[in-house]
Amino acid sequence: MVVEYPLKVRWGDTDAAGIVFYPNFYKWMDEATHEFFSHIGYPTSTLYKEQQIATPLLETKCEFKSPLFFEDEVIVRSIVTELHRKVFKISHTFIRKDVMVATGYELRAWTSFNAKPKATPIPDEVRNKMMPENTEEFND
Amino acid sequence: MVVEYPLKVRWGDTDAAGIVFYPNFYKWMDEATHEFFSHIGYPTSTLYKEQQIATPLLETKCEFKSPLFFEDEVIVRSIVTELHRKVFKISHTFIRKDVMVATGYELRAWTSFNAKPKATPIPDEVRNKMMPENTEEFND
Amino acid sequence: MVVEYPLKVRWGDTDAAGIVFYPNFYKWMDEATHEFFSHIGYPTSTLYKEQQIATPLLETKCEFKSPLFFEDEVIVRSIVTELHRKVFKISHTFIRKDVMVATGYELRAWTSFNAKPKATPIPDEVRNKMMPENTEEFND
Amino acid sequence: MVVEYPLKVRWGDTDAAGIVFYPNFYKWMDEATHEFFSHIGYPTSTLYKEQQIATPLLETKCEFKSPLFFEDEVIVRSIVTELHRKVFKISHTFIRKDVMVATGYELRAWTSFNAKPKATPIPDEVRNKMMPENTEEFND
Repeated sequence: MVVEYPLKVRWGDTDAAGIVFYPNFYKWMDEATHEFFSHIGYPTSTLYKEQQIATPLLETKCEFKSPLFFEDEVIVRSIVTELHRKVFKISHTFIRKDVMVATGYELRAWTSFNAKPKATPIPDEVRNKMMPENTEEFND
Repeated sequence: MVVEYPLKVRWGDTDAAGIVFYPNFYKWMDEATHEFFSHIGYPTSTLYKEQQIATPLLETKCEFKSPLFFEDEVIVRSIVTELHRKVFKISHTFIRKDVMVATGYELRAWTSFNAKPKATPIPDEVRNKMMPENTEEFND
Repeated sequence: MVVEYPLKVRWGDTDAAGIVFYPNFYKWMDEATHEFFSHIGYPTSTLYKEQQIATPLLETKCEFKSPLFFEDEVIVRSIVTELHRKVFKISHTFIRKDVMVATGYELRAWTSFNAKPKATPIPDEVRNKMMPENTEEFND
Repeated sequence: MVVEYPLKVRWGDTDAAGIVFYPNFYKWMDEATHEFFSHIGYPTSTLYKEQQIATPLLETKCEFKSPLFFEDEVIVRSIVTELHRKVFKISHTFIRKDVMVATGYELRAWTSFNAKPKATPIPDEVRNKMMPENTEEFND
């Protein structure tokens, strides 16, 4: 299950060196993750409103291969690469004109914000949509 | 009651033309308003945590006289210029090296987010701190 | 000439009160202005790269009628409402499900960043595209 | 050489779950790096203006131990942990009330933006300030 999220570099994303200010890559990874959940039928706005579920971060990383410029058109390709009981890793690849310009991941915890934030098992019906090809190997 | 909030232009605040991306002036006005409330003894973090009070915007405006550059040091001077029953206007002046570079205001409503957001009278003890020189003329 | 720019409220656009942090409305106005120029055949990335032309702000304002929430889908309708020799006003209306949620404008100067930034006359061929219905009344 | 950069979580840094939107940790790492260079006598605004030197990113990572909340006061402790000929790693630790809440790093290339961006050797006088305790072991 690969979900593609297209975006365009905006004027406000650039910095005085004329390239994208790097924290925006993480902003886009976050957007891509939300698009991923919308795409598999679990929009995170609904998850949060109805179940107070959000997926805060444990760890994120990004490698930058090539700078992005104003009005560049980019596709973020997102795929769940690890699916644990309460935690998952979603990997993101940034592609401009068929060339990979950056690659990163987010390690997120399925978390209830009902009271004090608390990691919670990812429901099976969601798991099956996140990683249909899941071979259970990560199901610790 | 004038409160001064000092800030420094950060790399990420600039754009490809080498000047500050203008929505950041509003980000700084917002920060200055929060600093204002901390300064008069009502930190907005406490207001929100203990009373679910926030002050969303009805209207904001800014005039830009001169661009700001990376690592410019700026002072925002904030003063409440209108104080109505549930609504107030806070005016902000941006000063770099004694020269005014921008000026704007925020019109905000004292709002309870307890249930559905609802404008609420500003308590008298807060009003007195917001505008001690208040001549009641705006107290419609 | 009305140009529509569709957008979706992202998780990072919200604040702890669960609504959009207001400077994002200005970020979106800025994006809508750039979309406007792309739409009329003058992408601002090209204007800046080839002619060092950008359009910094003299003044901006926004009135907020109704808060926006995470994953709200919004259309920004942009139209040039004043067209002076070097300066123009572009007005933006934010619409969610056929209801206006905010309205604002940006007053911008056509500016050469070749050397020291300097306001410059807007070329006629661009003017004609910006406001084809222009009755010359603002051509001071 | 450890440089400390104090910051306060702003309203606009939070998200609808009431915690800091994670890309802001990277924004703060970036700010901390610029503060680091100011501290050792090489403000990046001067480096960029006088020599067109900036330090774009090759790789960044952050581990999040504990969420940050509105108006939390945080110190970022920054130290250069690798110093290669053209590339360096700067590590950042986020501390709130003596407890580490996040830790990350940035791998950056000393780059001339004179013409096409090009990695360039870090001058010796800067190197000596960046990592006075440098044992040359990373000087590949």
